[in-house]
Amino acid sequence: MADEPTAKPPTVAFLGPPGSFTHKAALNYFANPSAHELVAETTIEAVVTAVEQGTTTFGVVPFENSSAGSVQPTLDRLLLSARTFPGRIHIIDQYYLPIHQCLLARDDLLTLADVTQVYSHPMGFSQCSQWLLQHLPHAERVEVTSTSKAAELAALNPGTVAIGSQATTQLYKVRVWLPNIEDQSDNVTRFFVLHQSPGRPTAEDRTYLYFTLDHSKPGSLCQALDAFRVGHLNLSKIDTRPSHLQPWHFYFMVECDGHYSQARVKAVVAALQSVCEKVGVLGSYSSLWRLT
Amino acid sequence: MADEPTAKPPTVAFLGPPGSFTHKAALNYFANPSAHELVAETTIEAVVTAVEQGTTTFGVVPFENSSAGSVQPTLDRLLLSARTFPGRIHIIDQYYLPIHQCLLARDDLLTLADVTQVYSHPMGFSQCSQWLLQHLPHAERVEVTSTSKAAELAALNPGTVAIGSQATTQLYKVRVWLPNIEDQSDNVTRFFVLHQSPGRPTAEDRTYLYFTLDHSKPGSLCQALDAFRVGHLNLSKIDTRPSHLQPWHFYFMVECDGHYSQARVKAVVAALQSVCEKVGVLGSYSSLWRLT
Repeated sequence: MADEPTAKPPTVAFLGPPGSFTHKAALNYFANPSAHELVAETTIEAVVTAVEQGTTTFGVVPFENSSAGSVQPTLDRLLLSARTFPGRIHIIDQYYLPIHQCLLARDDLLTLADVTQVYSHPMGFSQCSQWLLQHLPHAERVEVTSTSKAAELAALNPGTVAIGSQATTQLYKVRVWLPNIEDQSDNVTRFFVLHQSPGRPTAEDRTYLYFTLDHSKPGSLCQALDAFRVGHLNLSKIDTRPSHLQPWHFYFMVECDGHYSQARVKAVVAALQSVCEKVGVLGSYSSLWRLT
Repeated sequence: MADEPTAKPPTVAFLGPPGSFTHKAALNYFANPSAHELVAETTIEAVVTAVEQGTTTFGVVPFENSSAGSVQPTLDRLLLSARTFPGRIHIIDQYYLPIHQCLLARDDLLTLADVTQVYSHPMGFSQCSQWLLQHLPHAERVEVTSTSKAAELAALNPGTVAIGSQATTQLYKVRVWLPNIEDQSDNVTRFFVLHQSPGRPTAEDRTYLYFTLDHSKPGSLCQALDAFRVGHLNLSKIDTRPSHLQPWHFYFMVECDGHYSQARVKAVVAALQSVCEKVGVLGSYSSLWRLT
């Protein structure tokens, strides 16, 4: 039988480098490796841009961590996309990955007292801040762009360690010196899956949306949030981000129950539109926790 | 006349190193240099600890930036203090400093095309993100703990630049290559002044407080915020931070009108106590913008 022409598999852009927690989330979520081509990007910006421009089919970005909180660059980049290309990209799913941070070191480092520098991503430092205060209070903290980069630097520089994923030990000459040094043993990161088409309703969904207010009007935030109360939509999350339009003017980002295509969600969005300057839906997705 | 014994001047711990924006804010706020001794600390953690333990009289920490948003380590450290030593420290004042970020380089760097790496603090990158996308899209970003540290590294490493304050040119061998590269020309950072005694009411004050909710109760956030509406206290800011007590359990941090010693604020705090798990006041301070 002659070779048939094969369609190029869908691509998945993720926040790299290889070995990052986002890489692991993308591998778990798109579980059939032959059906998807995974592409590492160096920044959240680059992942979202690839989805916006259609150079990738899907994008995977970290959204929030149970102990460090929201990933502000993701929030800001989603807002920028909504402002610049409204409706172009949609959050279509979420994925929860348990995060275990390890102390990574070269083979020649034997006691914590010899550690002069610790490399990690700001989220790694944030998730292990109590451990660091107790065990490495005098080591200098060097923030780098990823936990993979941290492992690479710790492999190169004597007297230094990294906080990062066990997966990086396959890429760089470091060993797991101490596993699970995260402050919360049930440390979990939530990731968003992005796509150009919206997701379909499931049995139980959540919607992520944003609004802006006229801050000169007293009580405007209460009024906006009251729309959710009146519409019986529970709020599961609220964040405030600078609008970048004028100083001290904010975008409020809210996660609530329901799918944006449902009447009860549409009613709340309409109510918001009557009291807010601007309202936009960033996506709807199953509220199921898919943990591996 | 014989020398009289002189009292030791009050000390001011600030987020250093010398040359940092917080240093400038502390110098401006405590304007009489002979009346105060300024002490640089390397982390927000260390500044707050010094105030808690009484090893310094005052502390100065960054709180929020008009384009990058809240300084999460400050929020988290204030919450930790409220949990561990309730009522021990108080926010007693705020200070607004206009922030101008500069591109800093050695004398031998002449074209942007030769720049391979950019050093800055995450806030510096965040405040100049549009400029970087336009002018240095291919340079690697290296996050370091302060803009002073960034300037020091740019002075040492050929082909690298830093984003930071003009003040660092007095400390390291770098020049201001391009001034004012911040995305918002009216970029301002707000700082908090911390002390062990609370501040007195002024003509117009604001109060910063936190509360936690039973998240299993639908509508609990709306109910809590409704206390402010009913009490006619405007909200100027709301943030959500992980509680570190259990995953996906949050502290809500709210800035509202009024001084905590006023009856109208006490009434709202009492109303919050009836619907929240936990409520605490972090401080009250003049709402005046003191800009230099």
